[in-house]
Amino acid sequence: MAALLIQGATVVNADREERADVLCVDGRIAAVGPRAQDLTPAGAERLDGSGQYLLPGGIDPHTHMQLPFMGTVTMDDFFTGTAAGLAGGTTSIIDFVIPNPQQSLLEAYQTWRGWAEKSAADYGFHVAITWWSEQVHAEMGQLVRDEGINSFKHFMAYKNAIMCDDETLVNSFRRALELGAMPTVHAENGELVYLLQQEVARMGISGPEGHPLSRPPMVEGEAANRAIAIADVLGVPIYIVHVSCIEAAEAIARARARGQRVYGEVLAGHLLIDDSVYRHPDFATAAAHVMSPPFRPKIHQDFLWRGLQSGQLHTTATDHCTFCAQQKAAGLDNFAKIPNGCGGIEERLAVIWDAGVNSGRLTPSEFVAITSANTAKLFNLYPRKGLIAEGADADLVLWDPQGTKTISAATQHSKGDFNIFEGRSVRGIPSHTIAQGRIVYAQGELRAEAGRGRYLKRPAFGPNFAAAKARQQDLSPTAVKRS
Amino acid sequence: MAALLIQGATVVNADREERADVLCVDGRIAAVGPRAQDLTPAGAERLDGSGQYLLPGGIDPHTHMQLPFMGTVTMDDFFTGTAAGLAGGTTSIIDFVIPNPQQSLLEAYQTWRGWAEKSAADYGFHVAITWWSEQVHAEMGQLVRDEGINSFKHFMAYKNAIMCDDETLVNSFRRALELGAMPTVHAENGELVYLLQQEVARMGISGPEGHPLSRPPMVEGEAANRAIAIADVLGVPIYIVHVSCIEAAEAIARARARGQRVYGEVLAGHLLIDDSVYRHPDFATAAAHVMSPPFRPKIHQDFLWRGLQSGQLHTTATDHCTFCAQQKAAGLDNFAKIPNGCGGIEERLAVIWDAGVNSGRLTPSEFVAITSANTAKLFNLYPRKGLIAEGADADLVLWDPQGTKTISAATQHSKGDFNIFEGRSVRGIPSHTIAQGRIVYAQGELRAEAGRGRYLKRPAFGPNFAAAKARQQDLSPTAVKRS
Amino acid sequence: MAALLIQGATVVNADREERADVLCVDGRIAAVGPRAQDLTPAGAERLDGSGQYLLPGGIDPHTHMQLPFMGTVTMDDFFTGTAAGLAGGTTSIIDFVIPNPQQSLLEAYQTWRGWAEKSAADYGFHVAITWWSEQVHAEMGQLVRDEGINSFKHFMAYKNAIMCDDETLVNSFRRALELGAMPTVHAENGELVYLLQQEVARMGISGPEGHPLSRPPMVEGEAANRAIAIADVLGVPIYIVHVSCIEAAEAIARARARGQRVYGEVLAGHLLIDDSVYRHPDFATAAAHVMSPPFRPKIHQDFLWRGLQSGQLHTTATDHCTFCAQQKAAGLDNFAKIPNGCGGIEERLAVIWDAGVNSGRLTPSEFVAITSANTAKLFNLYPRKGLIAEGADADLVLWDPQGTKTISAATQHSKGDFNIFEGRSVRGIPSHTIAQGRIVYAQGELRAEAGRGRYLKRPAFGPNFAAAKARQQDLSPTAVKRS
Amino acid sequence: MAALLIQGATVVNADREERADVLCVDGRIAAVGPRAQDLTPAGAERLDGSGQYLLPGGIDPHTHMQLPFMGTVTMDDFFTGTAAGLAGGTTSIIDFVIPNPQQSLLEAYQTWRGWAEKSAADYGFHVAITWWSEQVHAEMGQLVRDEGINSFKHFMAYKNAIMCDDETLVNSFRRALELGAMPTVHAENGELVYLLQQEVARMGISGPEGHPLSRPPMVEGEAANRAIAIADVLGVPIYIVHVSCIEAAEAIARARARGQRVYGEVLAGHLLIDDSVYRHPDFATAAAHVMSPPFRPKIHQDFLWRGLQSGQLHTTATDHCTFCAQQKAAGLDNFAKIPNGCGGIEERLAVIWDAGVNSGRLTPSEFVAITSANTAKLFNLYPRKGLIAEGADADLVLWDPQGTKTISAATQHSKGDFNIFEGRSVRGIPSHTIAQGRIVYAQGELRAEAGRGRYLKRPAFGPNFAAAKARQQDLSPTAVKRS
Repeated sequence: MAALLIQGATVVNADREERADVLCVDGRIAAVGPRAQDLTPAGAERLDGSGQYLLPGGIDPHTHMQLPFMGTVTMDDFFTGTAAGLAGGTTSIIDFVIPNPQQSLLEAYQTWRGWAEKSAADYGFHVAITWWSEQVHAEMGQLVRDEGINSFKHFMAYKNAIMCDDETLVNSFRRALELGAMPTVHAENGELVYLLQQEVARMGISGPEGHPLSRPPMVEGEAANRAIAIADVLGVPIYIVHVSCIEAAEAIARARARGQRVYGEVLAGHLLIDDSVYRHPDFATAAAHVMSPPFRPKIHQDFLWRGLQSGQLHTTATDHCTFCAQQKAAGLDNFAKIPNGCGGIEERLAVIWDAGVNSGRLTPSEFVAITSANTAKLFNLYPRKGLIAEGADADLVLWDPQGTKTISAATQHSKGDFNIFEGRSVRGIPSHTIAQGRIVYAQGELRAEAGRGRYLKRPAFGPNFAAAKARQQDLSPTAVKRS
Repeated sequence: MAALLIQGATVVNADREERADVLCVDGRIAAVGPRAQDLTPAGAERLDGSGQYLLPGGIDPHTHMQLPFMGTVTMDDFFTGTAAGLAGGTTSIIDFVIPNPQQSLLEAYQTWRGWAEKSAADYGFHVAITWWSEQVHAEMGQLVRDEGINSFKHFMAYKNAIMCDDETLVNSFRRALELGAMPTVHAENGELVYLLQQEVARMGISGPEGHPLSRPPMVEGEAANRAIAIADVLGVPIYIVHVSCIEAAEAIARARARGQRVYGEVLAGHLLIDDSVYRHPDFATAAAHVMSPPFRPKIHQDFLWRGLQSGQLHTTATDHCTFCAQQKAAGLDNFAKIPNGCGGIEERLAVIWDAGVNSGRLTPSEFVAITSANTAKLFNLYPRKGLIAEGADADLVLWDPQGTKTISAATQHSKGDFNIFEGRSVRGIPSHTIAQGRIVYAQGELRAEAGRGRYLKRPAFGPNFAAAKARQQDLSPTAVKRS
Repeated sequence: MAALLIQGATVVNADREERADVLCVDGRIAAVGPRAQDLTPAGAERLDGSGQYLLPGGIDPHTHMQLPFMGTVTMDDFFTGTAAGLAGGTTSIIDFVIPNPQQSLLEAYQTWRGWAEKSAADYGFHVAITWWSEQVHAEMGQLVRDEGINSFKHFMAYKNAIMCDDETLVNSFRRALELGAMPTVHAENGELVYLLQQEVARMGISGPEGHPLSRPPMVEGEAANRAIAIADVLGVPIYIVHVSCIEAAEAIARARARGQRVYGEVLAGHLLIDDSVYRHPDFATAAAHVMSPPFRPKIHQDFLWRGLQSGQLHTTATDHCTFCAQQKAAGLDNFAKIPNGCGGIEERLAVIWDAGVNSGRLTPSEFVAITSANTAKLFNLYPRKGLIAEGADADLVLWDPQGTKTISAATQHSKGDFNIFEGRSVRGIPSHTIAQGRIVYAQGELRAEAGRGRYLKRPAFGPNFAAAKARQQDLSPTAVKRS
Repeated sequence: MAALLIQGATVVNADREERADVLCVDGRIAAVGPRAQDLTPAGAERLDGSGQYLLPGGIDPHTHMQLPFMGTVTMDDFFTGTAAGLAGGTTSIIDFVIPNPQQSLLEAYQTWRGWAEKSAADYGFHVAITWWSEQVHAEMGQLVRDEGINSFKHFMAYKNAIMCDDETLVNSFRRALELGAMPTVHAENGELVYLLQQEVARMGISGPEGHPLSRPPMVEGEAANRAIAIADVLGVPIYIVHVSCIEAAEAIARARARGQRVYGEVLAGHLLIDDSVYRHPDFATAAAHVMSPPFRPKIHQDFLWRGLQSGQLHTTATDHCTFCAQQKAAGLDNFAKIPNGCGGIEERLAVIWDAGVNSGRLTPSEFVAITSANTAKLFNLYPRKGLIAEGADADLVLWDPQGTKTISAATQHSKGDFNIFEGRSVRGIPSHTIAQGRIVYAQGELRAEAGRGRYLKRPAFGPNFAAAKARQQDLSPTAVKRS
């Protein structure tokens, strides 16, 4: 019986903080509070948490490890990526299965399951719907019933590749409602992006500075509004990934104001980095920041923070999807060919704590809500994940609010040669990460082991669907809410 | 030289009202004010306007005369429809050329021109873009340059028929910008309508009460928002036809609040009739109200009025498109097969005056703005139409604010066996209509003549484009307005 | 040692639900889960909760027991009122100390403390600021530091009585920020109400139907917006009591969208009753519904529900403040003299469950959030109240989701001769209420005891102030958020 | 008979532009168009307008000439100020009568009438309501009926001086409705400003940089929202002067979206100057920009332009109120003592044309709307002013769109030693100004004559009141608009 006692820390949950000891036994939390000491077996490992916070391990609901994309494959595989996460205090991820159009969902799912076996941390999958057919309809059911998938992703951009048209969107959302699974969307109007890429090229702009010109905020705002409207009409909850701009955040706020169950995710990068990076004179630096949606003018950052503060936005993620300079160079002559993606899994908790909690925007409890608890609730992993309580998985971060660090690609555990937070100094870092009750990171020493991560089955019909189902019984096809 | 002097009326323009005589000579206004008397030739016809208002003749920017639609053809052709308009004070219409997908725009245009030759009143055309190709791109240019077309219509609904997908929408809007022509949209998400029609059917609802269930307001709000967002990104003005609900009106208001040139049209029917009509026990009555977007719960009407009052909505129309009971019966077993359309060209001015001016919502000048002047400005017919001033076309209505009338199919001039305003009593009706300087309607007597109407060429690059062009020069593909 | 074991119920907290036994010992929760059985002492009382939910006892943050108001005193005193609460599952209240203008706050506080000694349930107080002076400034500090007051109430209505002008509002909010106490407001523009009461009277309307005419929604919306703006400029959190209309709810939503810490309370009555009651032909019935803000047209109810669903509104209350028909008759000739107030403490949980949870609007967890947990968090009683967890007060409701009841004044425990929910049948009622670990209500039998209630000291600087303080350090007098 | 023929210019009105000759005879416009030539008497003066625009003379609805304020008197008196206006193309002003609290309105009015006799251009007055009594109530009536006053101003700021509390506001708005006069407000919450001034001082900030800190945008947004809400409840139109920020503009937009008749004025300065001026190291420069509301961060400028583009904001003005460096030095040790005010009457048209029309934001017709026509309509001077048409006053500007100029205090006609637009180069300037049919400014030569200006009586019950009156009849004290 492996036991670990963490003593003297301030335990932070999404609803409160309190000073308490925490005992972990056999991978789960066995006791919180005075009893923890009493129940600790002789020979148990002990960790002194005094002066520190003890938080639920971070959950990153948006990563792409080992992703084949735009003709290449991301640098981090499921081992290196999840290991980097552990170093940063993130103990679970939800990655994406992305079938090619016409490919069987189950086949793609099995492929990803295989790739993920080497994970150092626990993992689940959203499955992307990139086409529509009876087979897709049927396989969605199998995935939900048999494989513990409870969320499906829809790319509204990437025309001529994985873009989902409105017909697919409508059908897939309808099916998700039936299955009790959450539809999620990458919200950008792909037709507009396609046209604007051509227009920008026609203007003679081929460098990374063309990237944000081809994806202005309204392109995202429109798509977010569209997906939300479809969800509203059908009566299904919806989750918008990587909300990056005022326009999309306002679409969410408007919907929530009419009582709709809409949820928004924000990336650490969008909270802290602005679009000036695309005008960096060095191609490699500018290109390293190319991801979609792009970084935005500063005013949008402030709006995203406010969304998190007010509960209009709910989760934080990274869209961790790393390419090296050589890979990015594929778009040397055409920004539209730069592989899209940036890292961040290792830095998310620290940069958000530094900018969010130290500034007083967020309380420590709110930090927990947006870095783990809300994700666990929305994707039905709660209370196993996202909570420090008896019976929960012993995934924890011992957080040193006075610890400081300067972020750099030179010292990161993630693969790749770039870090979008390069040079940023933060106060508030993990001193230890505990996963499944084991100390996997201790003061700079990473003890990740390939294959230790477990696949997380997530049951359908989470709490958000209780409401959806009741509404469904009453008013079926109607969204005539104002009448 | 045909001359007509209208004496003693209060002349109302969109900017003011004043007591003045008006002289018409050879189809145009020759003088307004004291000089009118002096210039009146002997033998001129004289009309006593004392106690009455003299308004610019109504312009209906949204009619479908002689339209082949859903397997049948509307009751009113270009003669009977425009004649009915004259009886109600409307002296010009803008109808629609609707090519089939794959059909040449020019060919369709010629067809409609032929049909329209019998018109009793002046007419122009919007041309619908129902598909996309190099040919369409080229023909749009020809229509603008050679044929006086300055507006193109896009149906976002009617899947598997004339629906325009986002690719077409984006390309056509882009082309319209280049040409200085106004894109207009029928805003309903066709994919959602298609799905909801099936869902409603699956619930066992086959009657007209299923019609509004299959097209809830959010379906329109979404499409309006999408079209507006596309126009915003491209920098082209946009006009939304038949705005029927809060959701669409709010999308317009939001866009206007950020300075975008967005314009909204409201139908007389949507201002006055609510969705209870679809639950009428008599199929014929319920079916007679089937049009898209459908009539809405009452609260939406109030919102539309407010939009007109505040200048967020700009024009009024009818979507005049009449089918008789026998035609409507095609959908006896399936509401989705009921030919969509209602009348109104004859009643528009009177019902809006009665509900709008008598109630104090609108001043007489504002009434002129929303029934003729704004339409003339937006579609570049101003100051030839929509204005009472020297040099303008002598299209006028002598309006008796004390005259009353009870509307009925039994007494209407429009063809067909139904009137959506049946039984409504109004105060404020035309006593005389003057078109091209001739009295064509006098106290109940209609003197319409087939073929009297003229085709109205409308030049491109109206005032709205001055701004669009300047913006274009500066910032091309960008809508990054907030930075 | 008094012990009570509740077995087999589904324990519902704001973050989740789970099947678990709950042991109460000496007034507190001693164990939740498997260990509860093990720790139960012999001779402990046992309650079978199978098939039922176990919820935290309700907290009503807005009651007026024994209130001297408009020349009379409410029917329910602190004993009868809190006893009625226990019968309905509410185990704590926060009432109001309302000093007269010029009266010492401390003196008034002591008076209310005396009145409240007979309470059957736990209680706290908000203290109203009805005037401003150095003394008031000083006494606010004493109340916070010595008496456990952490919230101050401001009446923006009731001119010439307890109305707070903007000078007082601004000074008091500023002081509350310093003290870490939450300002709360009754939001109605008292000057407008005063003028409208006169105008309505001038129109010859003296009956209760004049009451809502004199307090239209915009009167509330304006005041809410004003108080929120002041709080925003000063950087202090704010709580709006009894939000009754769209206009006020939108003011809150707008503020929250910019990241402000604004909280809204809704009354059970406003969620379920509309303004048609004021047109009831029977004076007594109409007058019995007179309270401020008044009941609103139906459309507002829907909007309030949506606010609760989306987290824009946070707590539910009753403003329990009962007057009998004889007292209401004081306004027989003048609606402005009808004592304002309605009951509800006994019915709140049941009517909200019935309309909110049975309809699928809210999950059981969300029900707990809005009936106890959020109030406990906002007023810093959490986790002692509003949570079922080891160490918390043993205030619980065993909730029978299948139990039904028809509400009536004839059977209520509250004093008075009227019930605003008269005749309403609900499904979902308390079977047992437990307060301080004792069963105080069991299947219709009320075992309330005068004097059992304890005064609740509430510490200042709750979690909402962590953020406020950090912001304060940075940017002092500025709300220049957009720059 | 004095006659002037302007030939070959493009005549621009708010509704259209056209090439036309314009004949002025005896101070009024005698003919526009072909007939102008024919009617021109021999010996008439002729002005060649080819290549130029001919616009209605500007109307500045917000000036303070010869104002005693904060212990001193503005530099420009009614002669120098109006003369400077003529040099810039502005041919009429509406200034303010500002009685001291307790002073008779009529007495103050007579004082200002006396001061204004030396005006070089036509002028009218808004009268401020700075206190409330039966006398004020009565004198408002006299001013409207006998003196041609149709607008009353309310300062919501300047506590302990001319600030209007809510009681006065409510009573005065109510009275204005009765009289058919437009209430106008300076929207800033004076209580908040007062508190913030003290807080800023306490932080040790005494220089002009403290000025904007003491008047953040929300202070203006709140007051605007409040005044609009009061007007909505009472059913009276309302005009907000010098809207400077997003928060206030949004309050107007929200109100207009619900159909309310709300109008907004923007100052040339707020459109073009940002708050960085207050951080200028030179006290005199920073202090020269002190006015209220202060200049704002850049993002607000963009929002104001959009308001003008979309018709949410309606007029432009200057709040011309000049103090020299010596006067401004009164606040050397305390920014709150710097006399508030800046100039601009001479530059308004040119800077707005340059930034508005040259950029494509506005068409020339829209420029006319916001610089003269809308003001004339709102304050019932139309069509005498703000229009080029037969019968209108011959107040005109011949506008050279290619003319350029660099603005400087060194060359201005206005008195004073500072120009807030110093160094700005503009394209588009007046070549000639015509007032009352006389050329008063010609290519740099100013021919203003003291005493030439006439007092403008403005009749009550302008068009905005037609609607207000009808609404009044129906629903008296109700703003229950959503029911």
